Amino acid sequence: MQTTLDCIPCLVRQSLDATRFVTEDNDVQQQIMKEVLGVASKMDFQQSPPAFAQLIHRRLREIIGDSDPYRKVKETFNRLALDLLPDIRHRITASAHPFELALKVAIAGNVIDFGVNANITVDGVRNAISAIIDSPIQGDIAQFQAAVGKAERILYLADNAGEIVFDRLLIEQLPLKSVTVAVRGNPILNDATIEDAECAGIDQLVKVIGNGSDAPGTILSDCSNEFLKHFREADLIISKGQGNFETLSRRPENIFFMMKVKCQVIASHTGCPLGTHLLLKSENHR
Amino acid sequence: MQTTLDCIPCLVRQSLDATRFVTEDNDVQQQIMKEVLGVASKMDFQQSPPAFAQLIHRRLREIIGDSDPYRKVKETFNRLALDLLPDIRHRITASAHPFELALKVAIAGNVIDFGVNANITVDGVRNAISAIIDSPIQGDIAQFQAAVGKAERILYLADNAGEIVFDRLLIEQLPLKSVTVAVRGNPILNDATIEDAECAGIDQLVKVIGNGSDAPGTILSDCSNEFLKHFREADLIISKGQGNFETLSRRPENIFFMMKVKCQVIASHTGCPLGTHLLLKSENHR
Repeated sequence: MQTTLDCIPCLVRQSLDATRFVTEDNDVQQQIMKEVLGVASKMDFQQSPPAFAQLIHRRLREIIGDSDPYRKVKETFNRLALDLLPDIRHRITASAHPFELALKVAIAGNVIDFGVNANITVDGVRNAISAIIDSPIQGDIAQFQAAVGKAERILYLADNAGEIVFDRLLIEQLPLKSVTVAVRGNPILNDATIEDAECAGIDQLVKVIGNGSDAPGTILSDCSNEFLKHFREADLIISKGQGNFETLSRRPENIFFMMKVKCQVIASHTGCPLGTHLLLKSENHR
Repeated sequence: MQTTLDCIPCLVRQSLDATRFVTEDNDVQQQIMKEVLGVASKMDFQQSPPAFAQLIHRRLREIIGDSDPYRKVKETFNRLALDLLPDIRHRITASAHPFELALKVAIAGNVIDFGVNANITVDGVRNAISAIIDSPIQGDIAQFQAAVGKAERILYLADNAGEIVFDRLLIEQLPLKSVTVAVRGNPILNDATIEDAECAGIDQLVKVIGNGSDAPGTILSDCSNEFLKHFREADLIISKGQGNFETLSRRPENIFFMMKVKCQVIASHTGCPLGTHLLLKSENHR
């Protein structure tokens, strides 16, 4: 997806949220916001929103001198999700439709996104996870399950810390030998990196790789050769979150996108109202 | 009021609304938004939000080659207000508290603000005016009425077209010989200029002057000497709308601000929730 005009005020607001999240110093906040606006004024609208966020967050980390300002919230939400894990796994095991329930929980976990909303609470996540159990999602679950059944090489693109713990439940439903999980190559927002995959214990189940990039999405030109090899060779790609959707929605690969719809631009693009828990097959798959 | 960090995403969003309002050409919209962001990146946070809007709208008018892109909506809302006028005047005349009712209608008219919301409808205005008649406003009406009773030179700072027709009803309750009404010196957004004051028939009642400025507020350093003379000599200033409040809130003159609270920054600043119809005496009056 290109950046739309509607993305601009939202990206500026997200940058302000991020600025306030990483520093309480008003002078530094003003300095960062002026730089944000300067970067935005030179933005290439052909690029996706995550390309903008990548630039902003690089500069933001540089100014505050902290290579991973979201480390603490990543740990908090990993821990929360790990606390909830045994109970949810029990429900999944006891369910008549374990695959479907695991999928729903993995999508609901996408609520833990500090890019869109820097005010996520532990209770908010708890409620989102418990609400999804009896709620429908939008999308063709049978089609996805059939695709999994046929796949020989599955690449699972994780999105956020905390969420990745819930991803584990879906990964446990996949043919483990076929699965590689990719996380961000370097810290960006609260997006999951190798440490978070390890914290979720996913490295004990399947191969985990970093994608070599610090964008909050999958900008292929910014990814490592190792990641690109996996991307090319996968016959099924599972893509979590809006950032991955924004950067991969036009790709010709066999991608199933899973996300919570969190902004009006994505809502219009997908035809699904805000808040939808969405499973969406790539339109451009050859 | 200074510009706050929270004003930035809002000013960018308002600029996008304005851009879309004045042109449907996506390339021009992108060009304008890039310029908006460039101007914003160099913004002096000591200045008020209307100083930013003034710069943006000057450039916007220049790019589209139209010195008054809001002319049509100004006419539309003047006409709507004139249509409603006889009925409301009748209600005021028949009321036990005509001064209070005229004041309430003048404040409710402040809803016609294309700066904050470019999607104002004729029905929205009709509803706002009819709702105010039985609703309370926030503020000390008796204190204001007493100030009017004592005043020898009243300067009435109008805000928007359409709204200025409702202002007429309040002006009719004032000692007409003491009143001067000031409007913007040049077109900016849907703010009232001399033409709108004439359309409302206010020039038939009292002296009307332009303030010499094209800011959507009252930036004294940008106003004409004629306006400044009236401003200095007034012993009571009636100030309509957020833009005038944002630019005059710290002044030592005897000012009564009247506005609908339309943004979170003003809500926090005044301690009044969004949507409040507010009458507020200047804190810094000596």
